[in-house]
Amino acid sequence: MTLTGKMLIGQQSLSGHRDAIRAINPATDTPLEPAYAGGDGEHVERACALAWAAFDRYRETTLEERATFLEAIADNLEALGDELIERAIAETGLPRARIQGERGRTCGQLRAFARTVRLGEWLDVRVDTAQPQRQPLPRADLRQRHIPLGPVAVFGASNFPLAFSVAGGDTASALAAGCPVIVKAHGAHPGTSELAGRAIAQAVKHCGLPEGVFSLLYGSGRDVGIALVTDPRIKAVGFTGSRTGGVALCQAAQARPESIPVYAEMSSINPVYLFPAALEARGEALAEGFVASLTQGAGQFCTNPGLVIALQSTALERFIKVVSDRLPRCPAQTMLTPGIFSAYETGVAALAKHARVAAQGLPATGPNQGQAHLFVTQAKDFLANEHVQAEVFGAASLVVECTDAAQVRQVSEHLEGQLTATLHLDEEDLPQAHALLPVLERKAGRLLVNGWPTGVEVCDAMVHGGPFPATSDSRSTSVGTAAILRFLRPVCYQDFPDALLPTALQQGNPLLLRRLLDGRREA
Amino acid sequence: MTLTGKMLIGQQSLSGHRDAIRAINPATDTPLEPAYAGGDGEHVERACALAWAAFDRYRETTLEERATFLEAIADNLEALGDELIERAIAETGLPRARIQGERGRTCGQLRAFARTVRLGEWLDVRVDTAQPQRQPLPRADLRQRHIPLGPVAVFGASNFPLAFSVAGGDTASALAAGCPVIVKAHGAHPGTSELAGRAIAQAVKHCGLPEGVFSLLYGSGRDVGIALVTDPRIKAVGFTGSRTGGVALCQAAQARPESIPVYAEMSSINPVYLFPAALEARGEALAEGFVASLTQGAGQFCTNPGLVIALQSTALERFIKVVSDRLPRCPAQTMLTPGIFSAYETGVAALAKHARVAAQGLPATGPNQGQAHLFVTQAKDFLANEHVQAEVFGAASLVVECTDAAQVRQVSEHLEGQLTATLHLDEEDLPQAHALLPVLERKAGRLLVNGWPTGVEVCDAMVHGGPFPATSDSRSTSVGTAAILRFLRPVCYQDFPDALLPTALQQGNPLLLRRLLDGRREA
Repeated sequence: MTLTGKMLIGQQSLSGHRDAIRAINPATDTPLEPAYAGGDGEHVERACALAWAAFDRYRETTLEERATFLEAIADNLEALGDELIERAIAETGLPRARIQGERGRTCGQLRAFARTVRLGEWLDVRVDTAQPQRQPLPRADLRQRHIPLGPVAVFGASNFPLAFSVAGGDTASALAAGCPVIVKAHGAHPGTSELAGRAIAQAVKHCGLPEGVFSLLYGSGRDVGIALVTDPRIKAVGFTGSRTGGVALCQAAQARPESIPVYAEMSSINPVYLFPAALEARGEALAEGFVASLTQGAGQFCTNPGLVIALQSTALERFIKVVSDRLPRCPAQTMLTPGIFSAYETGVAALAKHARVAAQGLPATGPNQGQAHLFVTQAKDFLANEHVQAEVFGAASLVVECTDAAQVRQVSEHLEGQLTATLHLDEEDLPQAHALLPVLERKAGRLLVNGWPTGVEVCDAMVHGGPFPATSDSRSTSVGTAAILRFLRPVCYQDFPDALLPTALQQGNPLLLRRLLDGRREA
Repeated sequence: MTLTGKMLIGQQSLSGHRDAIRAINPATDTPLEPAYAGGDGEHVERACALAWAAFDRYRETTLEERATFLEAIADNLEALGDELIERAIAETGLPRARIQGERGRTCGQLRAFARTVRLGEWLDVRVDTAQPQRQPLPRADLRQRHIPLGPVAVFGASNFPLAFSVAGGDTASALAAGCPVIVKAHGAHPGTSELAGRAIAQAVKHCGLPEGVFSLLYGSGRDVGIALVTDPRIKAVGFTGSRTGGVALCQAAQARPESIPVYAEMSSINPVYLFPAALEARGEALAEGFVASLTQGAGQFCTNPGLVIALQSTALERFIKVVSDRLPRCPAQTMLTPGIFSAYETGVAALAKHARVAAQGLPATGPNQGQAHLFVTQAKDFLANEHVQAEVFGAASLVVECTDAAQVRQVSEHLEGQLTATLHLDEEDLPQAHALLPVLERKAGRLLVNGWPTGVEVCDAMVHGGPFPATSDSRSTSVGTAAILRFLRPVCYQDFPDALLPTALQQGNPLLLRRLLDGRREA
């Protein structure tokens, strides 16, 4: 397939009229062809009109029809073969194995949502049957199902060009819910975006769905991004990116006459707690695990361990010493974009003003290479300075030394909302961990024991979310099958004749759903 | 029990220092003792501090403990006997039978949430067991449950002094979810609020819960309302009232550094569709049913039928004629407050500028009595004027005459979001109703066939919600057991030892929950 540099508005390929972007290969600092001219209000208008026109038909596709569509997208992505892999590598600087793994995850995610759609639990069918004889008043027949919110605008992330981008989790879960999707492509990987976008558009065509089910736009945040979020036909937003970007989208959505849900995954430093017995027993192994998690993918993960919290002790000194021995052997790694690299440098410089540099990775040998950093500070300094808990996107982490358990708690209460919190503990640490748990549950969406936060499983139980600023809506997850719930709302049907009821609610339960029937869940 | 005029901050009774309010008996326009001096920032601070201190303990009460607490509140409300009934009648002008029925509903609601808590489905437990041998990477053990958001601020409604007020649906569902609640009492029924508040505070004490689980404040929107919504310890808001009030709370919540969910139920005119065959076959019965629904409780229902949509026809003329015969026999009814009465008069006058007055009820014979009104207009005029779809809270309704089915659809698409939409239809009308259904599903939270929207059942399947401006968050309902879901967020526990897991997630499933276990729902 030859890349065209064009947007996809329904089944139509269209060139924008605004400033063009080209991807830059961050490993060589060279631009990649083709140019992607930015879209404008007209393209947003056209994509929204198509999405709106497609909505009523698409949202009433059968469970099977919708699941098959999601599977077709996965098949089409796989059929792109090496072309997709090569382009993603060129646009991101990420290693081949990582991109291949990410493709597997992306396709697996689409298929997981296909299974979720078929299972139908997301419909949350509730039936309260009529009680015509009830005193003092009869009860009507009341039936509830969930329907999709409407067309969804998706803003992909730079750091997962497949799994969190055009055909990523937000798109997959919104399509699974029955929402048409309009993606604004991330400027860092427009070619990868075009390939994935075409895979989706082909699946739309192949499955005989209305073309407005999917569109892909390129362009600036103002010309396309804000225009999308403020269009009255857009009913929800999925976003993964910076805190600044996420907050701007939330504000735009809130300023609408009809405010809409924005699911923005933004910022997290993912505290890692090293409890005394664990640190004493296996400090070296913890240090090695930590370095691996910190430096994986140049640290460009939302769940990168950016904060280590522990009691001052010789065991902690040994941990810092081992990390400080290992880190200088870690090569600098190409970051995703020149902008991200530059922001990392700025973030590291800012941290260095407030914390001691304990160790650095090997210096850069090419353009846009981020050098790992370990900082150390005292809890009292951490508590005194809000800036030190700003996310530094990349392989930088800060160790906070606490004097006692009370200070560990104080530091924890002081933290902003997080995607994850990790506890390294041994049997003897359980009481301390138990005491801290309520704080961590209030602060984070996922809590881990004796693992590392990088690596987010796509499954039913996953929560990739958390209180602000981790996300803009802690009631949800953007990874895992529960992500579908973000794009639904309940509708109740009272005294409907069977012929007028949606299939999911009909008397005979033709979809064999486990309904909540008169207060009891069906087996 | 003697009313004290004091706030309840935890177990403490405190007097405010700001301007005092007295309830006014709207039937006689006379003020009622005692005076309720308004609270200020200090009282908000104290209530929030107590709520925050109570949160970690209260949210880990067992299902049984929490359910028993909700039942104790219901018992205490009933134990108030006639004192509660008398005071509510005096403060609202509502008839005795209505207030007695509302007490039954309020207590039934608390007990329904107790059952919901015990059932535990709201925990949405999901377990993905470890797969240590999985290739290329092992899978961790991942378990998800829901935890409450945190302390909730509740703003009661004027029109349901029991069921949507201090011990009403918002409070019951938030307490059921595990959230401490701080209520700002509605100024229209402070005495009823005090009685209900004491019933809750006594249950808190009786059940040995931390006192911060419940507080009741009096005061102005600015001194107490906005101060509550912007306090960082408040994590969600429940509100039932005017559009202006709801939007103001939403804006205050959005302006916080950490924006929080606001569930505001605000404004709905509840379109009623009269399809041709039904109108032809039983126009008179429909007219009588309509008048009864319109004038019930002086029309002071969120689900009052404020709009009737039908094709121009002799059958519609007959319907209007019958309503116009009946309405002049309907007595004017005392409205809830002088302010609501005055707003009703203003709303009726505004409608009269744009639509023909077809009929009026009997004129007032006492203070604050609202006179029922029927207006008629043409679809083209309805479409041309945004103002005519503003809610007029009271017994006023507008008939919109359409020339054809296409215009019915056009009027429907033009509607703002609604709590309900009602279809009166016979067998022959089914195709037309079917064609309109997708529009109505997009517009409203509850759709009814051959009934009237007033009367909202408290059950599992109920949806009392809908797109803006019906509510500020269409993903939820404020009536029915699903209302508990508004106050929860998911947390995932990865590789936790059983000893550290919350009971709901432990290996042996001690709470006997129907978990989503490795992709399958347990029987």
